[in-house]
Amino acid sequence: MGSLLIKNGKIVTATDLFDGDIYIVDEKIQTLGARLDLKADKTIDAKGCFVFPGGIDPHTHMELPFMGTSASDTFESGTLAGLYGGTTTIIDFAIQSQGKSLSEALTQWHEMAKGNAVGDYAFHMAVTDFNEKTKNEIKDVSERHGIKSYKVFMAYKGALMVDDRQILQLMEETKKFGGMVIAHCENGDLIDGLVAKNRTAGNLAPRYHVLTRPPIAEAEATGRFTDLAYSGEYESYVVHLTCEESLQRIRLATQRNQKVNVETCVQYLLLDESLYYKEGFEGSKWVMSPPLRKEKDREALWKGINQNLIHTVATDHCPFCMNQKEMGKNDFSKIPNGAPGIEHRMELMFSEGVEKNKISLNKFVDVTSTAAAKIFGLFPRKGTIAVGSDADLVIFDPKEEHTISAKTHHMNCDYSAYEGWKVKGKCKTTILRGTIAIENRKALVSKGFGKYLSR
Amino acid sequence: MGSLLIKNGKIVTATDLFDGDIYIVDEKIQTLGARLDLKADKTIDAKGCFVFPGGIDPHTHMELPFMGTSASDTFESGTLAGLYGGTTTIIDFAIQSQGKSLSEALTQWHEMAKGNAVGDYAFHMAVTDFNEKTKNEIKDVSERHGIKSYKVFMAYKGALMVDDRQILQLMEETKKFGGMVIAHCENGDLIDGLVAKNRTAGNLAPRYHVLTRPPIAEAEATGRFTDLAYSGEYESYVVHLTCEESLQRIRLATQRNQKVNVETCVQYLLLDESLYYKEGFEGSKWVMSPPLRKEKDREALWKGINQNLIHTVATDHCPFCMNQKEMGKNDFSKIPNGAPGIEHRMELMFSEGVEKNKISLNKFVDVTSTAAAKIFGLFPRKGTIAVGSDADLVIFDPKEEHTISAKTHHMNCDYSAYEGWKVKGKCKTTILRGTIAIENRKALVSKGFGKYLSR
Amino acid sequence: MGSLLIKNGKIVTATDLFDGDIYIVDEKIQTLGARLDLKADKTIDAKGCFVFPGGIDPHTHMELPFMGTSASDTFESGTLAGLYGGTTTIIDFAIQSQGKSLSEALTQWHEMAKGNAVGDYAFHMAVTDFNEKTKNEIKDVSERHGIKSYKVFMAYKGALMVDDRQILQLMEETKKFGGMVIAHCENGDLIDGLVAKNRTAGNLAPRYHVLTRPPIAEAEATGRFTDLAYSGEYESYVVHLTCEESLQRIRLATQRNQKVNVETCVQYLLLDESLYYKEGFEGSKWVMSPPLRKEKDREALWKGINQNLIHTVATDHCPFCMNQKEMGKNDFSKIPNGAPGIEHRMELMFSEGVEKNKISLNKFVDVTSTAAAKIFGLFPRKGTIAVGSDADLVIFDPKEEHTISAKTHHMNCDYSAYEGWKVKGKCKTTILRGTIAIENRKALVSKGFGKYLSR
Amino acid sequence: MGSLLIKNGKIVTATDLFDGDIYIVDEKIQTLGARLDLKADKTIDAKGCFVFPGGIDPHTHMELPFMGTSASDTFESGTLAGLYGGTTTIIDFAIQSQGKSLSEALTQWHEMAKGNAVGDYAFHMAVTDFNEKTKNEIKDVSERHGIKSYKVFMAYKGALMVDDRQILQLMEETKKFGGMVIAHCENGDLIDGLVAKNRTAGNLAPRYHVLTRPPIAEAEATGRFTDLAYSGEYESYVVHLTCEESLQRIRLATQRNQKVNVETCVQYLLLDESLYYKEGFEGSKWVMSPPLRKEKDREALWKGINQNLIHTVATDHCPFCMNQKEMGKNDFSKIPNGAPGIEHRMELMFSEGVEKNKISLNKFVDVTSTAAAKIFGLFPRKGTIAVGSDADLVIFDPKEEHTISAKTHHMNCDYSAYEGWKVKGKCKTTILRGTIAIENRKALVSKGFGKYLSR
Repeated sequence: MGSLLIKNGKIVTATDLFDGDIYIVDEKIQTLGARLDLKADKTIDAKGCFVFPGGIDPHTHMELPFMGTSASDTFESGTLAGLYGGTTTIIDFAIQSQGKSLSEALTQWHEMAKGNAVGDYAFHMAVTDFNEKTKNEIKDVSERHGIKSYKVFMAYKGALMVDDRQILQLMEETKKFGGMVIAHCENGDLIDGLVAKNRTAGNLAPRYHVLTRPPIAEAEATGRFTDLAYSGEYESYVVHLTCEESLQRIRLATQRNQKVNVETCVQYLLLDESLYYKEGFEGSKWVMSPPLRKEKDREALWKGINQNLIHTVATDHCPFCMNQKEMGKNDFSKIPNGAPGIEHRMELMFSEGVEKNKISLNKFVDVTSTAAAKIFGLFPRKGTIAVGSDADLVIFDPKEEHTISAKTHHMNCDYSAYEGWKVKGKCKTTILRGTIAIENRKALVSKGFGKYLSR
Repeated sequence: MGSLLIKNGKIVTATDLFDGDIYIVDEKIQTLGARLDLKADKTIDAKGCFVFPGGIDPHTHMELPFMGTSASDTFESGTLAGLYGGTTTIIDFAIQSQGKSLSEALTQWHEMAKGNAVGDYAFHMAVTDFNEKTKNEIKDVSERHGIKSYKVFMAYKGALMVDDRQILQLMEETKKFGGMVIAHCENGDLIDGLVAKNRTAGNLAPRYHVLTRPPIAEAEATGRFTDLAYSGEYESYVVHLTCEESLQRIRLATQRNQKVNVETCVQYLLLDESLYYKEGFEGSKWVMSPPLRKEKDREALWKGINQNLIHTVATDHCPFCMNQKEMGKNDFSKIPNGAPGIEHRMELMFSEGVEKNKISLNKFVDVTSTAAAKIFGLFPRKGTIAVGSDADLVIFDPKEEHTISAKTHHMNCDYSAYEGWKVKGKCKTTILRGTIAIENRKALVSKGFGKYLSR
Repeated sequence: MGSLLIKNGKIVTATDLFDGDIYIVDEKIQTLGARLDLKADKTIDAKGCFVFPGGIDPHTHMELPFMGTSASDTFESGTLAGLYGGTTTIIDFAIQSQGKSLSEALTQWHEMAKGNAVGDYAFHMAVTDFNEKTKNEIKDVSERHGIKSYKVFMAYKGALMVDDRQILQLMEETKKFGGMVIAHCENGDLIDGLVAKNRTAGNLAPRYHVLTRPPIAEAEATGRFTDLAYSGEYESYVVHLTCEESLQRIRLATQRNQKVNVETCVQYLLLDESLYYKEGFEGSKWVMSPPLRKEKDREALWKGINQNLIHTVATDHCPFCMNQKEMGKNDFSKIPNGAPGIEHRMELMFSEGVEKNKISLNKFVDVTSTAAAKIFGLFPRKGTIAVGSDADLVIFDPKEEHTISAKTHHMNCDYSAYEGWKVKGKCKTTILRGTIAIENRKALVSKGFGKYLSR
Repeated sequence: MGSLLIKNGKIVTATDLFDGDIYIVDEKIQTLGARLDLKADKTIDAKGCFVFPGGIDPHTHMELPFMGTSASDTFESGTLAGLYGGTTTIIDFAIQSQGKSLSEALTQWHEMAKGNAVGDYAFHMAVTDFNEKTKNEIKDVSERHGIKSYKVFMAYKGALMVDDRQILQLMEETKKFGGMVIAHCENGDLIDGLVAKNRTAGNLAPRYHVLTRPPIAEAEATGRFTDLAYSGEYESYVVHLTCEESLQRIRLATQRNQKVNVETCVQYLLLDESLYYKEGFEGSKWVMSPPLRKEKDREALWKGINQNLIHTVATDHCPFCMNQKEMGKNDFSKIPNGAPGIEHRMELMFSEGVEKNKISLNKFVDVTSTAAAKIFGLFPRKGTIAVGSDADLVIFDPKEEHTISAKTHHMNCDYSAYEGWKVKGKCKTTILRGTIAIENRKALVSKGFGKYLSR
């Protein structure tokens, strides 16, 4: 491969900020210094730019088969869009089908990703049917596939949901192999009841999606999941936490000195439920679970980040095109749940977070990259700018302004959740393992460049 | 029937305390006054005694078929024991069998009680299998049987436990008829997992009962139940709350201004888990669910009473003789759950609560009688000493000391949970609907005297 | 005096509600019964009416010398207005002047009240200068004057405020004599700073009164007062609590099982801060300390009552006529603090509380009468309808509608804080110690009828 | 000065951990890299050792005149002892005398430190008398002396304590110049009352020190200080927080999204109050304010660190020799408050924190160095290992075991608070601004080497 020298950047980690140069040999960072006097095969001048660790999105669903269709981004298109936006690594979910084995799911997901992904990727294992057979697979999943995080769904009864007994048994079994259970926390029974009642009442428009998934359904499940983890002193991770009520459950868990890792998504920080009330079917664009919440919740989440109660900001990237969304034209409960997001996570977090003084530069790096790497066992290979780490870097121009649009984005989705948003700050160059992946708005790498990350 | 005059008593209600006379005509209180100059068929001098409203025990299980045997007190022996101890009314549980109807259970319980009960009684309806058929019975249970309280079990999976969906549907349906859902709050899945693990490990002694039912299992279910009630703004009632962790969940519910009624039992106020560690099989005497807790929990419960977070003190009276308990000689999980208690609830609450300055005389009346009457729709017929109310009265000598023993108690159980406890204060005379039921330690009424209370 | 029979009333206490008659001999209730067949000097038919215990207002300031003027109601006019509205007893504040003795204050207040008060009255002793001399007076105040409650001000530095050391010493000394410290909780230093800053900035309109007394100032002092009481395990009482933040401090105190008694005032339940923004100087009518708060606070207070965190509803009656208010025409900080209220406390609590289903009838009686009597040592002489209690009664017609106006009220104040409010429910007849005080909107008693209540 | 190369270290920052070399030119870090191929004037092999950023102790009192004597370490001896233990920077307190000016205090402290300090130092300005004159000095203190942190004492009335008004005014004034108020949080009035009472009662032994400074006194003041800061949206910093109750106040502040920085000290993490009960006068060694607390508090503090509620670990280094302590031989209130600690802070935090898995290596660096640098404006000059930062480094051998003793320590104090403690991990080499300060247990720098850090 050779060497690459990035000069004059403002280098940012979760702790540091300094002016300097980065010298890369092959895939790794070899030297950090002031005015490095080294020869390199290629030199980039990062003057005026920040240099961030490549982003890690710990929650994506490429090609997810769901609700009778499939998410519209493949591992190729999705990870490439990620690279355009500075995200060099994703952690996707291999999801067991109820009645089938974990290994069948893994085979399927490895097949989807391998030779296709442009960016690096790891997997969480979603367990939807925990039984004696599943239990016996955990060792293999952990040791052979290098997977340490196991997801459960507390909603979607009959399809994905497991009961408390299964959650506890999974916690016990995975801990033996250094694993951790992570959860989608919504009370499925409570939601199913509300959905049934509203469908019966003829309430079928997209806005009934949010009206049937109230904060109490999420808060209850968040609290229950942390209680279950507490009962056996298990470390845990809550995915896509969205609201103040749920965050308060986390805070209560900390009062008993419990360690809970928490993720939110960029959309919960930036958008709110008023979008579901747009005319006609437009609200379907933001139909995702949990749904967008209120202004007060957004505020609570930003503060939660600064209080270290929320550790990672993901996307739950799971796009469906409008013709897919229209499966629920006449019934909100049939709208495929999910929205595109991976491409703009880092730019939005910079523009809305750092530029608007909601979070510091260091915290930006932490929530978009470092914390996910540490929690999920990718650190220090990924998630930082340090000697010996993978040279996954984003050269970021904080001054360049641009406007988000489906016309220009690279995700395979015919709408944007942020159409028309003006953003300050742009990923100019993305480097993955020492290779320039994106430069001058062009991709210099292609399908198959991405590597699977065994943990 | 005629008239009865009680003279010179210290009359106590949940608010008042005054010296006076009570004049009763037939079943009702007609006059309260200072030195009433009225003629009566019979006159009792209550000088030096308190006169309390007859006790109401809102949680008993007479003849309950459970774990392969039946509780050893019948409606006759159990309510008679209650009268000896000043409890004139019980609310027992008619329990649906999974797969059967509510009306079958009601028929069975009415048969057990009718013509047998000596004291007055009402029923809670325990719903263990909520489905379309059950739903259609609620109207009848409510309107024809006069039942307003519906119990669910969040533990005992496979036998009694219902899921969250059923709880919510039951809340919705019963509210239409002015009913309320009440719950046994323990997370069955969590407990079943611990029980299975301990049985596998050969941990079979009685003390594993408490070790497999930790406070977090109760607190989680208590919080979940209040969350479910909150989601639909339903009033609710938590039975036999035992520990600080659960009480804290109640306190949090009040912070969002939710109304939750809470019951504890006298044993949770007075006894603690050290009893499970007695030599041999003796700990089985206190095997009940939830189990006895720690000293700190007892303290929290007393304070919870004074903070009005806990409203009623019941017994969960469900006695099994030692030969029944021995079904679990070699496996704690097979020990029939339950203990005797109805006879000494009021005397113990007076002796340990009022005499030791933990609660006031008015609070004593409130938690042993008035609050239960108000919550369960028996007020003002029951639960107070007021003009027009049923003349259910206890003439109580605060100075008489006695010792609790299985040798002398009237419950059909060959041990006492409080063997050897010295008690200060004695129910001298119990009056039920104007009739002297107990006097000079003798019963003056017999089977069939008790009336069913439709609410 | 003779006998009085009240027939056919719906008699209400803090616990009970029953149809019955009340027979009074001289000053006391002698008999309660259904259809009492007794002869009386006078008989009143209360058909269709409630009969409540006479109201107790535990927080009034008759003739208070304050901010260069004096409250406009005398003990005569103020207690008479109280009787018109069903309040038969007040507890006023004898306030020490800094540098002077407690006994001087008591002499002054006894002189103001004695021979003038129409209704019954007791005193709290306000201690503004606690030192060795003051300390030596406590025994006398307690034993000779029968005063058990000692007020401190945590605001009004230089005039009334004491420091934490004085509060603690007062708690210690008064406890020896069965007394309790009660507090005006606002952080004087914080408020004085805001007042000074706003005056300097030329912010002089009435609305700056509320802007310079934020909830945090009250919450801080409320928390500090409860902390000080907790440090020595002293019982305590917080006067006129107004906001959610302060109530939360009380809730936290209960979590450590501390007993704190709490008072709010009717205006904090019914009015809000928008009144300060009325045109011109009109906002001055509601300039009182603490100020009116927000809608959310009103809601929290109503719920606090039902959660038993708030025990009494007083008025802090302290009226000033508009020409007095105008002392602060050009400077909000010079507007005499206070407003009229005693006359309509009970009718407003009934109309806005009971009629609108915010509180039950029993709770109405509790917060307007019973709780104050119990907390301040007047029970059972005052505060209930029971055999042997003073016959202080209100015959209340729940159907009569009327409109509050300064034109028709009996308080010596040329405006009403509730001008034009429509009220459902009217005190028809007020009876004080067996004597009809108010009937057919006429006073039948006059100055000097009120008695001092030594506790 | 020249260049220095540190090879083969395990370099640790608050985020990173990597194997590498550090190249220093003059006072600054110039390059970080794997196997740096650079020539240097001197090379150190750090194989097997960690390289940490030099420690920052944000709370020391060198030569403090206090309670009639002076702390026994001078800026020379104290900072040298710090260097032996890896602490390269201290922040000491220049303390205004009541009645005197800030500049007088600064002159005195600069005189004490300048030409004497061996390690680098900055000052906090302690304001004990805030008035118009003091107010006018803030600009100068901030801009000319480069001081951004202003301490207040909420205890020691009559000597150091200020009232709430002064605290608020100081917050307002200092914020104008980018400053922040930091506080010793104990309620002086509450403590003074307890001290007086105990002295009167003849309770004079050292253990009465802890008995007169209960957690509620600290918690109250901690809560009040955060309330005051909240009232004006001021950032703040709590020094030496010691107990669970106080930490809970901090947690409540975070619930309203307030930013509060919190410090604890190493002794509160490691020692407990049982030491005050040692025979005779030995307990005096640990007489400091606030006092040592209970086991549960220590646990809460460790967890508070991991929950990011506590940010820095200081020492409050303020040693007195035993003959000084003996001033309080017959009266605990006259024992000079303070203990030695600076020399072993880092080694103890490593040995008890990192080695015992209570905190991670990164967190160790954060609490001993990085966080203090960021909070107090010394970052990135101090507090990290990054290109361009001061080369303040500790080469730390994690395997070397040693025993703490007054016989071998370098602090000017004839006892150690940790006498006989076995420690795993040793600061082998300390480098300050590129100069080797300590090597082979010898000091290579001397008085006057330390620089004043204007912020």
